[in-house]
Amino acid sequence: MKTKEVKAFGTQAADADLGQMNIQRRTPTPHDVEIEILYCGVCHSDLHTARNEWHGTIYPCVPGHEIVGRIVNVGSHVKKFKVGDSAAVGCMVDSCRECQYCKEGLEQYCEQGNIQTYNSPDKHLGTQTYGGYSESVVVHEDFVLRVPENLDLAATAPLLCAGITTYSPLKHWNVGAGKKVGIVGLGGLGHMGVKLAKAMGAEVIVFTTSTSKVEDAKRLGADDVVLSKDPDQMNRYAGKLHFVLDAVSAKHDINEYLNLLRVDGSLALVGAPEHPLPVAAFSLIPMRRSFAGSMIGGIPETQEMLDFCGRHNIVSDIEMIGIQQINEAYDRLLKGDVKYRFVIDMASLKK
Amino acid sequence: MKTKEVKAFGTQAADADLGQMNIQRRTPTPHDVEIEILYCGVCHSDLHTARNEWHGTIYPCVPGHEIVGRIVNVGSHVKKFKVGDSAAVGCMVDSCRECQYCKEGLEQYCEQGNIQTYNSPDKHLGTQTYGGYSESVVVHEDFVLRVPENLDLAATAPLLCAGITTYSPLKHWNVGAGKKVGIVGLGGLGHMGVKLAKAMGAEVIVFTTSTSKVEDAKRLGADDVVLSKDPDQMNRYAGKLHFVLDAVSAKHDINEYLNLLRVDGSLALVGAPEHPLPVAAFSLIPMRRSFAGSMIGGIPETQEMLDFCGRHNIVSDIEMIGIQQINEAYDRLLKGDVKYRFVIDMASLKK
Repeated sequence: MKTKEVKAFGTQAADADLGQMNIQRRTPTPHDVEIEILYCGVCHSDLHTARNEWHGTIYPCVPGHEIVGRIVNVGSHVKKFKVGDSAAVGCMVDSCRECQYCKEGLEQYCEQGNIQTYNSPDKHLGTQTYGGYSESVVVHEDFVLRVPENLDLAATAPLLCAGITTYSPLKHWNVGAGKKVGIVGLGGLGHMGVKLAKAMGAEVIVFTTSTSKVEDAKRLGADDVVLSKDPDQMNRYAGKLHFVLDAVSAKHDINEYLNLLRVDGSLALVGAPEHPLPVAAFSLIPMRRSFAGSMIGGIPETQEMLDFCGRHNIVSDIEMIGIQQINEAYDRLLKGDVKYRFVIDMASLKK
Repeated sequence: MKTKEVKAFGTQAADADLGQMNIQRRTPTPHDVEIEILYCGVCHSDLHTARNEWHGTIYPCVPGHEIVGRIVNVGSHVKKFKVGDSAAVGCMVDSCRECQYCKEGLEQYCEQGNIQTYNSPDKHLGTQTYGGYSESVVVHEDFVLRVPENLDLAATAPLLCAGITTYSPLKHWNVGAGKKVGIVGLGGLGHMGVKLAKAMGAEVIVFTTSTSKVEDAKRLGADDVVLSKDPDQMNRYAGKLHFVLDAVSAKHDINEYLNLLRVDGSLALVGAPEHPLPVAAFSLIPMRRSFAGSMIGGIPETQEMLDFCGRHNIVSDIEMIGIQQINEAYDRLLKGDVKYRFVIDMASLKK
């Protein structure tokens, strides 16, 4: 298979900094599009994978799955896109397409395991897939999304992971007008959760450990903000919420948040704490509550989310960086020092 | 308020055996019915409460909330029942009737807290409520159930708790034809879960730690039985089940059962392990699974369950005892030595 060498930024080992390298991209096959990457969001998963914190990282590793760019080449059979279109790629670049879940548009739950944008087997080249910290990417058109024209391209990038990861559970658990929704944790995911739940018409209550985030939560659209360390403030919402989106990946007592749910309420975890979370039977049984999890979203739903954001003029709050600042950005990410998502200006890679 | 003294069997302290005592029952008010108790099932909650294992037990304590009997007296305004009817009472004898949940027929989730058949405040007499280990009980007709004529009265008693506790979640999570359902633990609750899920049309797989229960599970209707200690047997159902009903109150690894669920599957806990259950985020997130709980069922649903059991000729497998054997029965209950529910022949109390 013909390939092209392109510049990328990645790492050779769990304990090495990210640095410049060259990778191969395939020449587009009939259904592929080639995208010049303009912006790539920085997700905590990038850091986890680069540093092999979830194990299973294949090196060299080029992270990045919040990709926005412009189409520079299309395969002969491509129908959805033409050269010059803006386009986006999220966490997946392929799936089996044949299992029950793929057929339902739930490629994220593909029975064979979906092909992730980085660190998955690349069936074309026999290597691992390489992500968006690179000049360009080649992806089957079915896994490429259209970007609404009114949205800022850089601030759109985080929608591809942080946006869909919060949109999908909000939709799945029927968040909308008349519903009281809690968002736990105001970071990259949480701040998108606030904007999206509010645009869906829900009453949004943000739960945070940090007094410094109260004003910002309100600016983002929260109707109320609760300091989760204050039992009195927590008690005000006991048994009151229809749904809680928990975007905290640090250790926390999930029972405190389950207790906020009304009868038949659900809490969905989208952050992934490292250690198991102890759940008391009596947090669930007396009010038929559910403790659930949710993972990104399928391709049709990702397009739906982008279109929804276009209609509601929603993008991420971002801090733009050059690719040369990525190691520093990772360090700041670990401290929660970003409002609310780093986005790499990929023009910096050409320097 | 006029009362009548009746014989009962109860306990004066957490560490005392149950023995005979006298209690007061109110004279029926206009909407009350007086029921001569013929049979009362023995639920593990009876033992927990008698021994104050959940704390909050008010002594003297007369347990029993799986009550079947015959109506011997009706208040002047009673419409649903007449003297001579068979009737049943379950875990609740009243609720606020005004909150959103009561209005939906979900009295078990009453915002004010429902009035349980025993160990709740008795608003008529100012004492605690006394349960079914007694000659008779007086209950508002709205909390009294009709018993299908074709069912054996003694074997019907356990339906009032074990039956509705399993029926309600099976219905709530849409168990029926085309669904694969796991039942974890083959005891009083689990054996009802098997019968009910099978009658609803589901494919039923029983999970047990005990080889001695394999044949019995099949006799009760299980399509397959899995020894949960055997990882190979467990793996056969990984990602395959639509719903799991977990009726185990002993400590167990809930992640092993969550991993049996397919995408969007739910596991509902109806047993209540004493200590919190550690749940791994990755047991939930990658397949959008839910870990839920469920508590008994509302009054309309309890009637629906009894009618369903009438149509399908479903009752509990029981071992009949005299009330004088109750302390021994509790000891056997702790060892799981009962197939599958003790029922007290209340005629024994008259001796």
